[in-house]
Amino acid sequence: MATQGLIGAVEAGGTKFVLALAKADGEVIARTRLPTNTPAETWPAMNNFFTQSSAKHGPITAFGVASFGPIDIDPASANYGTFTTTPKPGWSGARFHDALAHFNAPIMVDTDVNGAAIGEWQAGAGQGCRTLAYTTIGTGVGTGVVRDGRSLMGISHFESGHIVPPRNHINDPFQGICPYHGNCIEGLASGPAIERRWGRSLDQLVNEPAAIALIADYVAHLASTLVLLHMPDRLIFGGGVMKAPGLIAAVRKATAAKLNGYVQHPRLDPRLEKYIVTPGLGDDAGITGAIELGRQAFARA
Amino acid sequence: MATQGLIGAVEAGGTKFVLALAKADGEVIARTRLPTNTPAETWPAMNNFFTQSSAKHGPITAFGVASFGPIDIDPASANYGTFTTTPKPGWSGARFHDALAHFNAPIMVDTDVNGAAIGEWQAGAGQGCRTLAYTTIGTGVGTGVVRDGRSLMGISHFESGHIVPPRNHINDPFQGICPYHGNCIEGLASGPAIERRWGRSLDQLVNEPAAIALIADYVAHLASTLVLLHMPDRLIFGGGVMKAPGLIAAVRKATAAKLNGYVQHPRLDPRLEKYIVTPGLGDDAGITGAIELGRQAFARA
Repeated sequence: MATQGLIGAVEAGGTKFVLALAKADGEVIARTRLPTNTPAETWPAMNNFFTQSSAKHGPITAFGVASFGPIDIDPASANYGTFTTTPKPGWSGARFHDALAHFNAPIMVDTDVNGAAIGEWQAGAGQGCRTLAYTTIGTGVGTGVVRDGRSLMGISHFESGHIVPPRNHINDPFQGICPYHGNCIEGLASGPAIERRWGRSLDQLVNEPAAIALIADYVAHLASTLVLLHMPDRLIFGGGVMKAPGLIAAVRKATAAKLNGYVQHPRLDPRLEKYIVTPGLGDDAGITGAIELGRQAFARA
Repeated sequence: MATQGLIGAVEAGGTKFVLALAKADGEVIARTRLPTNTPAETWPAMNNFFTQSSAKHGPITAFGVASFGPIDIDPASANYGTFTTTPKPGWSGARFHDALAHFNAPIMVDTDVNGAAIGEWQAGAGQGCRTLAYTTIGTGVGTGVVRDGRSLMGISHFESGHIVPPRNHINDPFQGICPYHGNCIEGLASGPAIERRWGRSLDQLVNEPAAIALIADYVAHLASTLVLLHMPDRLIFGGGVMKAPGLIAAVRKATAAKLNGYVQHPRLDPRLEKYIVTPGLGDDAGITGAIELGRQAFARA
């Protein structure tokens, strides 16, 4: 078996690509960012970075990709690594394995939220967890669940944002903005839903405790459902909405009230202060996860 | 590595133990049932069956146990196979590994619902699935999720029955019977909840479409949540409540309405007739799963 050389890591977002060349131990030795244009523009620019940095630092023996979607992340699928039905011009049918083929290295592709979850597990607030659930509450809502360092999936990646929470319509007559479900978590508690309901972002509503409590209640429904269906060692909540002061504390309180002591385990401290936490890596979670995915790609190959 | 001999299988229920001696291919060569009394009575009777049937048919090289709980099912735990806080007299602290120690064979212990899920995956309605979710709606409500033949868990087994569904209190002013959450799925749609609400079982309410539709709506909330958080290849719904005529069809219809076309995959047929199904093994799911657990115990050892 060959020795692992350098890892090419890609965090592919809807507006920018973050690229890194890293050593097997995770140390980043070159890094850049590119705008997400069409594949015809972004693929050559991406290849250019890896070709030039590899020429300088050494051969790349694996790639890890954490990408926006929808994208096929099933290693057993013929379309693994291919964007499916994205409305982003040019990306539907584009495939990371084609774009990176000439490096002749194994490639592991996962979703952006799974990548961030793996990053937090590897080097952030999820260190030491066997099962970690990382949720982003931002433009969209999604959860990556990591077990022993690998993201879990079924026939597709998970879609936690589309769970419909119980509601008190007297407290919140808002109908929700999800085009599929109206009042799912994403339709009620994402950044755009908050803007539509109140005309402001949640961090501009910190003096309205009822607003914080309402969003916390929806996030806590997701938190308690994640506990009941995955029993993680810890829950991380990140994303733009979670930056609103007081929200994480309100989510802890509402989740504890919903679980009502039913799940007894040393991991769940009474006030959930160690159990429900914010991310440890900030904006670096995705690229850190992509490096770990490259490590896993090499280990599997 | 030793050749696999016979498997000792235990399906431990709250009222009875089903015991089987099976060949490695799953063929049952001896079988019995015992009442679930105290461990002081049930353990020796269980051992007696395995000792006598093994003397006749050959050595037992592994045990599989699918048991009522709460019980520690984490193979990495020092208390693996031990009943925890059960109110059943004598069982708290009782451990399958102690009871079966003198056979000197590896033992794999899982919950009853995980055992049934594994049984259905192995030989029932879940054959061919990579990810299978098996839910029982009966005295309690629980789900076992199997991935590639192994049950999934986190810090503990899952507790799907305690998810709280959205409600329309005009349709259903009933407060629910769960001592922890009141109106969770188990508090609203389990057999005892149905008896408490209507004074009858659901199969005595087949001429009241509103009753069927109400219970179907709660079960469908669980079904759609399982899809979003595990993306199974198929969902099986069993247990006493699910035997009510018309319920499975109503669950399919309500689940399709809730998902509203959001999850597109060949596994999800439009009417969910192949996706949401009843069990294939009936009362044999648990013991079939226990035999498979014994096979896994041997493979791991």
